[in-house]
Parts: sequence; C-alpha cells; structure tokens
Amino acid sequence: MSDYEVLELPNVLLQRGGVLPMAGLAYKTLGTLNPARDNAVLVPTWYTGTHRDIETFMIGEGRALDPRKYFIVMANLLGNGFSSSPSNSPPPNERGRFPKVTIHDNVRLQQILLSQKLGIARIRLVTGWSMGACQTFEWAAQFPDMVRAACPIAGSARTASYNKVFLLALQRALELDPVFANGFYDHPPLNGLKAFAAIYAGWGTSEPFYRTEVYQAFGARDYQEHVAYFWEPFFVRCDANNLLSQLWTWLHGDISNNPVYAGDFEAALGAIKARTIVVPVDNDRYFPPADSEFEGRHIPGAECRVISSIWGHMAPMNPRDIPAIDGVLNELLAD
Amino acid sequence: MSDYEVLELPNVLLQRGGVLPMAGLAYKTLGTLNPARDNAVLVPTWYTGTHRDIETFMIGEGRALDPRKYFIVMANLLGNGFSSSPSNSPPPNERGRFPKVTIHDNVRLQQILLSQKLGIARIRLVTGWSMGACQTFEWAAQFPDMVRAACPIAGSARTASYNKVFLLALQRALELDPVFANGFYDHPPLNGLKAFAAIYAGWGTSEPFYRTEVYQAFGARDYQEHVAYFWEPFFVRCDANNLLSQLWTWLHGDISNNPVYAGDFEAALGAIKARTIVVPVDNDRYFPPADSEFEGRHIPGAECRVISSIWGHMAPMNPRDIPAIDGVLNELLAD
Repeated sequence: MSDYEVLELPNVLLQRGGVLPMAGLAYKTLGTLNPARDNAVLVPTWYTGTHRDIETFMIGEGRALDPRKYFIVMANLLGNGFSSSPSNSPPPNERGRFPKVTIHDNVRLQQILLSQKLGIARIRLVTGWSMGACQTFEWAAQFPDMVRAACPIAGSARTASYNKVFLLALQRALELDPVFANGFYDHPPLNGLKAFAAIYAGWGTSEPFYRTEVYQAFGARDYQEHVAYFWEPFFVRCDANNLLSQLWTWLHGDISNNPVYAGDFEAALGAIKARTIVVPVDNDRYFPPADSEFEGRHIPGAECRVISSIWGHMAPMNPRDIPAIDGVLNELLAD
Repeated sequence: MSDYEVLELPNVLLQRGGVLPMAGLAYKTLGTLNPARDNAVLVPTWYTGTHRDIETFMIGEGRALDPRKYFIVMANLLGNGFSSSPSNSPPPNERGRFPKVTIHDNVRLQQILLSQKLGIARIRLVTGWSMGACQTFEWAAQFPDMVRAACPIAGSARTASYNKVFLLALQRALELDPVFANGFYDHPPLNGLKAFAAIYAGWGTSEPFYRTEVYQAFGARDYQEHVAYFWEPFFVRCDANNLLSQLWTWLHGDISNNPVYAGDFEAALGAIKARTIVVPVDNDRYFPPADSEFEGRHIPGAECRVISSIWGHMAPMNPRDIPAIDGVLNELLAD
C-alpha cells in the first residue's frame, strides 16, 4: 500500500513551454481538516526531499507542525521521483527528455490540489525548508489571498547568482560522468554522483562545522569519512536525472519571473499579504542571509529572524536548532 | 631567451617517498643583493601561479616589493609547469606518474637555492599569497634562523578540513572527464577543466562579490559570463596533471607533518622566530580567517591583520586591496 496519493491532471502546459500529458502531484496529508477549514498547513518538499523526509524532520506530536492540531498537506516537488519526474514519466518525457518545470508550475499544481481537491480556500500557514522555502515565497506572491501566514526557512524568493554558481558546478560535474550518457544511463553514474556529493559537502554546512569537527556527531573521524558516510549516501540514492530536473527548477527560481510581475522583484514581494517571517541561517552558504533580509524588508509587515547555527543550511536537520524554528512556526500558527 | 633560471639538483628524495632523478627549481631574481647581503626577499608562487604572475601582481617600482631596493627571488612551485612538473618531467615521472611533492619538499629545495647558489644566509622577508603563504609558514618553521620576517597572505600553516573538501571536489570533477585518462590525455580534458572552473568560481571570491555584481568590472554581465570569461580561461590554460599535482601539495600542507615537529602543530608555530604578520581576508572562503587568528596567537610575537574585502581570497589581485597589503609588507621590511 502506498503512503501517499497522487493528483493527476491532464495536459498541463508548463510555464516555460513543454507539456506534461498527465501531470502527477504526489502528496500526503496528516491530521484532520476542522469544520471551519482553517487549520490547513502546506509543506512543500526541498531539493531531493519527499513527503517522508518532511514527516521525519519537520512534523510530530509536540512539534509546531502537530498533526493533532493541524491538517498538514505535504506536497512533493515535480522531479523528486514521487510527483512527475524524469524517473517515472513515460515517453516522450522520460529520463533525459523530461521538460523543464519551474517553482511557479509546482505551486500552480499545488493550488489546484488545495482548492479543488481538498476544499481549502485559505491556508493557515505555508512553510518549507530550502526549495520548500522557494515554493513558500511563490505561494505568497502568486496567491496572496490564499495564504494567511508564510515561513520560508533557509530559502529565497529569487535564486541568487552565488547560489547559481554552486548549481552550475554540481550540474557540470554530474554530466561529466560518461556513464550519465545524456540522461539515458543503464546504471547510476556513481562517480558523477560522488563528485556531486563532494561539491555539496563544501556548501551544505559551514566552515566552522568542519573546523570544530561537528561531523564526529555522525561517527566520521575526518572530512573524507564525512563525505563518504553522509554526503555520498545522500546523493547516490538519487536518480541523476531527477537531481538535474530539480536543480533546473531551483536555478530558475524567481517569484517575479511571470506575466503578473514581469520581472519586478520588489513588486512581487510587495504583493505578499501573508504574515511572513523569513528565517535564514547565518552560516547558510547558498541562500545568503543578506538576501533574506532584503526580502524581509520588502514584504509588507514581514520580519527576518536569523537562526545562528554552524550547521549552516542544514540547521533544520539539527535537533538543537529545531526549538528556534518551531518557535517561529508556533508564533505564525497562533490566532 | 628564457626569463628565468633553473637550479638542477640530482637524486632528490621526496618527503613522502619517491625520487626526482633531476629536480628542477625554476626561479627568477630581480634587483641586486646588497654588500651586506641583507636585502633579499623570497616570494614563492601560488596555486597555478608562476614567477611571471608574481612579477605582475606583487612587484613593482613604488610597490612594497620594489626591485630598486630589494633583491627579490621568485621561486616556482614544483608542479607549476616551470619547476619539475608532470608536464615537463621525463619518464618515469612524466604526466600521471609524477611523484607526490609536499610544501616541505619545495621549501627544502628553495633553501638550497638561497644558501648554496645565491649566498643568502638570512632572508629579510618571505612572503607569498595562498599556497605562497603556505610555503612562507613552512619556511619560518623549518628554517627559523634564516627568516627575519614573514608575511603569509591568505594562506595557512596547515590545510583546513573545509579547504580539503573544496580540493576533493575539484579533484573528483577533473578526474571524471573521460578525456583525462588517468593523466595520459591526448588533448586537454576541457570539460573537466570547465567543471573545475565552475567549482572554483564558488570559492575564489565571495557571496557579496556575486550579490553586488563585482564581476561587471571584468565586463561580465552575469555569473555565467563571469565563469566563462574569468574562471574558465584561468584553468583551461593549465595542464590538468599539473593542477592535480599542486592540488595534492596543497591538500597535504602542514608545517608540523615532519620528523622535527612530529605532528605537534602548536610546537611548529611556536618555533617560528621571524617577525610575522599573518594576513587573512575576512571573506576568504577556503583559507578561513579563524585559522589565521589561531596561527597569529601561537607564533611568538606575531600579529594577525585581517584585510576586509569582498574579493575574498582574490583580494591581493584587487587594486583597491593592495595598499593595505603593501602597508604590512613595508612595515615588515623596515629596519
């Protein structure tokens, strides 16, 4: 038995061109929608993440996102292997032929799920980590009247150039593996995925994380074991085409790159009506806190609350940083 | 006519094993050694750098390193293509078969050059940028009585784990290119070198460098042009084996990893007698300033002077940051 459901939508035209003849949006719900229909919380997935990862890391009894209190909808990113992806699409969209999808496309499908399938007119809170935060910003800007509160955690409303350089390096390394074969590989391009993992290892946490040898908490004795034990398993389990599909989505994230805002980034931020707290991490290397502060200043009534953690971008995975994050979520969930 | 000389030394046993049947140390001198023989300045090269780069970026009339006043010795790193390197060594040490050389090996050869060939018993100043700084630390720790003053700029006495993760990523990406062929390529592994360049682009400067679009100073309109115009030419001109040889040298930098100090890093720093000013850059991503401050505290009488620059590691290439660096050098050169 599957632990998730799939909303299927025929003939989905994508924002940048291309068509999904049958788009699948995989999701899972926890908890119960109350009679007032005002306790829904939407949590989209992060890069490589799935509804199962959200359940593991962000949700639980006693946590801010408590399924005893809230109707929690976890939506899988297109390209993550559960929603429509290179790995699960039939020809002519399979593998290296999967079309380019944007954050905007993702949110548009999620909006159909919530409004037409689940009967939710207003979401109490949209929150997500990393690419989940990118989707959170997109939600608040595209459907300002549907989002009561928003909490983007360690993500951005528009992918920064510095972030893009990181993504370019990842893409070039993975595609360099001759086994990758333009996406039509017979077995996983392991060496490419290991190079990918090594690049990621230098961005996923922070300089003090290595200097103070926090990786020992995972049983690694040195940086090499940390890469081998933590980062390589993290990525070698992933389908290479799925990684590159989501990477493209991330690379092109920009809440203003659509006809409504026509590239006016400040106008898109200014249109947000949700009570918003932007939560960056001071040591985040690829979602620069300086950008979060800019977002916080341009979203009406918003705040920017910086989490201080040497786990950098990975702070939401660190038990010690969770109370600070849950504190913000509780504040936004309160009446 | 060659613009440099080569000191040839037969049967050089290397620190980690391996032999160079005829080691070549390429160097160039500028200026004149005074009768007191106390105006010699040694400047070793950085990663990919040559004596020509040092001459371009660090030396000049009116600069701190003024050849009208000082006898300047520029020493090329083993592996840089001028000193013994994969690209210029005969069998059985050619290309992918070149042995591993350490910072220690480099400094040992340079010491022979200075004491036996050039007749210099005491060096007024050793200074270098990046891997040149690593050699500066090594000089001061291995030959404390020969070094009057030392100025390591944006480098370290022991390569940090975080720095090593960066180097691991570079190595994996380059070796992934099937054209590389374990170092016995028929033509340059261009795609591997371009992946290398893209990785480097995320570390060579800083987040604010990209955020404030400093790359426009080089005529690049966006991050992609910056990578294509600046970082790709920087690396595609390099021999891939030479890059990997110098990378190994950098990866294993540690002034205490030798019989004299037997891994006692603080003892090695404590043995330094040179008047030392350690000069990190606040936004340097791979030579963490926190490590420079540690070094500054453990070298007797030393100071750590942090340069503030969004050029990060590349600050010494930025005309605006040169006065601060030359100021420190002038201070150390004064009587």
